[in-house]
Amino acid sequence: IGSSSAETDSQTEWTDVQKKIIPWKNSTPSLDLEMVFQDRAAKLGKSNNSLIVVASLIDKPTNLGGLCRTSEIFGASALVVGNLHYIQDKQFQHLSVSAEQWLPLVEVKPSQLVDYLQQKKMEGYTIIGVEQTAKSFDLTEYCFPEKSLLLLGNEHEGIPANLIHHLDVCVEIPQQGIIRSLNVHVSGALLIWEYTRQQVIKQKQQK
Amino acid sequence: IGSSSAETDSQTEWTDVQKKIIPWKNSTPSLDLEMVFQDRAAKLGKSNNSLIVVASLIDKPTNLGGLCRTSEIFGASALVVGNLHYIQDKQFQHLSVSAEQWLPLVEVKPSQLVDYLQQKKMEGYTIIGVEQTAKSFDLTEYCFPEKSLLLLGNEHEGIPANLIHHLDVCVEIPQQGIIRSLNVHVSGALLIWEYTRQQVIKQKQQK
Repeated sequence: IGSSSAETDSQTEWTDVQKKIIPWKNSTPSLDLEMVFQDRAAKLGKSNNSLIVVASLIDKPTNLGGLCRTSEIFGASALVVGNLHYIQDKQFQHLSVSAEQWLPLVEVKPSQLVDYLQQKKMEGYTIIGVEQTAKSFDLTEYCFPEKSLLLLGNEHEGIPANLIHHLDVCVEIPQQGIIRSLNVHVSGALLIWEYTRQQVIKQKQQK
Repeated sequence: IGSSSAETDSQTEWTDVQKKIIPWKNSTPSLDLEMVFQDRAAKLGKSNNSLIVVASLIDKPTNLGGLCRTSEIFGASALVVGNLHYIQDKQFQHLSVSAEQWLPLVEVKPSQLVDYLQQKKMEGYTIIGVEQTAKSFDLTEYCFPEKSLLLLGNEHEGIPANLIHHLDVCVEIPQQGIIRSLNVHVSGALLIWEYTRQQVIKQKQQK
């Protein structure tokens, strides 16, 4: 009986870890969600990373699938998408190579973004827009706080003006090419990497 | 006549700048090629970057098109592909967003790679493989030489053993995810960014 019970426990735990889709609502106590994330991360043997990647403004399933793969690999605590339907998309799945099974996905529709960003701000996150503006920090000079939330812009329109007001800071990637800017998945990947690199260096310095 | 002549000169120059495909041969004096690159870069107002991205082992047109866009934006001096036919591919063009018109592309077939890498080594380039090996440097710790050549691996097989011997160093990206490694375009983009970031910092320190 002992063995059978242990097996059941183990299966329950595993299913719990794989339960990946968490719809966000204003009414949901967000602290609980975070505990779910941290619990999952610990079970998966990941370091406790406080990076949230918000891709609610992104339209293309290929970009979302790629971001899902990259976010999972660098141990982001969650990827936020505008609609959970994207996860069923063939192109999303082709690019994500099943990363959606191991990364918490949260659905925040574009219309909910202002509320979501405000709540995260109250929880201590710095809201960072990846956007070229007159006041943007250069990525080579920006120092990421431990609790960072990255808001990525739409493929065509970037981050709309009404959301810019709700950001703590904008960060831009210095680019010297003739053609238009980087693909949004690549932009996101570079900021996720830069956050990760800075965290790794901080951890080494603390040892 | 003066005006017409100036116009012709200007057109000639522009066409010259746009002439982008340079087949590499063992017999080609490579110094000439480099002068062509530097001349083009200067005409395009780009800084004189000595980063070569070698993608000859990459099979997927989407990855090559994406790398073309990213390499152009960060001012790489050239992108090396295994076959120039890729540039005609619809998927390549969709992802490159015409960056191939502004970035020197060199064709080096996989069978020519050993000779090509040896020649570049003689020209002072450090040959850097993007690969996870027992001796790889962690990307958070690696300091890129000014003349850097990045060799990216195949999507499935990475860098074959016979080529590993010809590298000066391997660099790997620290990854903590459950799923398999980063997409090769993203891996390449992170190394291109890290090279660029270090160059920017060096230039600021020199001022």
